[in-house]
Amino acid sequence: MAELDFVDALKAIANNPAARGLEDDAAVVEIGGETLVLTHDTLVQGVHVREDEDPADIAWKLVAVNLSDLAAKGAEPVGVLVSHMLGTGDDRFVAGLREVLDEYSTPLLGGDTVRADGRRVWGCTAIGRATHTPVPDRRGARSGEAIYVTGALGRAMLGISDRDSGSVNDLAYRRPRPLLTVGHKLVPHVGAMMDVSDGLLLDCWRMARASGLGFALESEAIPVADRDRFDECIRWGDDYQLLFTAPVSAELPVPAARIGMVEGAQPFLSLDGRILDPKDGLGYRH
Amino acid sequence: MAELDFVDALKAIANNPAARGLEDDAAVVEIGGETLVLTHDTLVQGVHVREDEDPADIAWKLVAVNLSDLAAKGAEPVGVLVSHMLGTGDDRFVAGLREVLDEYSTPLLGGDTVRADGRRVWGCTAIGRATHTPVPDRRGARSGEAIYVTGALGRAMLGISDRDSGSVNDLAYRRPRPLLTVGHKLVPHVGAMMDVSDGLLLDCWRMARASGLGFALESEAIPVADRDRFDECIRWGDDYQLLFTAPVSAELPVPAARIGMVEGAQPFLSLDGRILDPKDGLGYRH
Repeated sequence: MAELDFVDALKAIANNPAARGLEDDAAVVEIGGETLVLTHDTLVQGVHVREDEDPADIAWKLVAVNLSDLAAKGAEPVGVLVSHMLGTGDDRFVAGLREVLDEYSTPLLGGDTVRADGRRVWGCTAIGRATHTPVPDRRGARSGEAIYVTGALGRAMLGISDRDSGSVNDLAYRRPRPLLTVGHKLVPHVGAMMDVSDGLLLDCWRMARASGLGFALESEAIPVADRDRFDECIRWGDDYQLLFTAPVSAELPVPAARIGMVEGAQPFLSLDGRILDPKDGLGYRH
Repeated sequence: MAELDFVDALKAIANNPAARGLEDDAAVVEIGGETLVLTHDTLVQGVHVREDEDPADIAWKLVAVNLSDLAAKGAEPVGVLVSHMLGTGDDRFVAGLREVLDEYSTPLLGGDTVRADGRRVWGCTAIGRATHTPVPDRRGARSGEAIYVTGALGRAMLGISDRDSGSVNDLAYRRPRPLLTVGHKLVPHVGAMMDVSDGLLLDCWRMARASGLGFALESEAIPVADRDRFDECIRWGDDYQLLFTAPVSAELPVPAARIGMVEGAQPFLSLDGRILDPKDGLGYRH
């Protein structure tokens, strides 16, 4: 059963509209007059983090990627639950967890520890409070809107070979920063919004497909960390910039690069007028 | 770093009282005039489920153990997020997930899929709505209360050797039933409450320690599935009965066995008047 079939099967059994969390990055639940945003991400050793990654960086990333999903909803964190597989460097894991929770004023609500040999796995559930409704998702783009991204892509990719240097690229990889404040400011202005976790092209295609519209990108307008490695920069993940659409006339409250336009009446992704085939490795699928 | 030190370290960094979820089985958060209960449990192949467990049973158990934590809070399910590591039998996993969600009218809100070789790991976060406040936890026992358990212990243990027979013991192991209705009815009456997931003795000791009181149990009063294997039945986990304390005069709305009394002014656990040493393998730690 392929991953997409699995998700389709899950969607079929999800007896609630909030199940959009299965294809989107977060679930949205109305409760007690509030709109909650819930997201869960799992990190696997050797898959999402390097085999010998510092556990402090793993803890940071585990929480940060979930908070990034809240950022893309314009939600503010209520707290996180963390599932940790005990092992080497647990003191470092605790140190990194403390750092990321302090940095984003996010309470640790609870969690679970397990003990097992083999490949380690970590999980985090983040709970957020929506600051604006309707909560945006990847389906909200409208024809005629412009497509924006909040910052340069490819830093995390460059950071992998820049290991432990403390450079801006190294930190982008090891200590990604969820754009909570940016997301909060943007949310009243956007059509669709999501974070770029799996590469700009793949995430643009997902937004195009979910919205049922064409996304026409202009390469010259796309901000990247290294123009000589442009093709990689727009296909690599882990950057956690925010990708969103907004009316051309919108006065955006934060800096963002306008990288293309939403057009047409059916989903496509194009770069400089050339249609890209989704089968051609647009980004990182995991 | 041992598991308990790790949890202590997490508690030290948890900047919120709701962090009781770290030592308790669930976190409690007030939001929008509602009291939410959040719980996360992770299952590891070969540790919490058998190496060759039917993925349908794994999915059932994954959700059921989390709903059991809600039951122990008297909470009703709002929904679950499921993290699934793709692999063999994903169609069976989907089938089991559908069954357990239908059985307990619980929406699937979202989740995450990951792909990796090696030992498989599954995670579930359950969100519930408290039906009664304050929400009970393991700290609420009072001296002079009686100690109760809702049903026989040891069925899941017996079920392991009764494999796939469809017997009551086999089903207790493969398809544990979260006592949501029972927990809902009990919650206005209890002092402390928790589910018995790691063995009656160990969970009684945890409740005694958290409440700072002595728990004096009477072996004859403890309902077990097989009296010839009494010592094992009260040390084995996975039964998911509810353990609670209540005033002796309480008129309980559900059947429950009165198995002892809360007494003294400091934590201890005794069986038939003999003090048990917590170091002597009271149950299943994981």
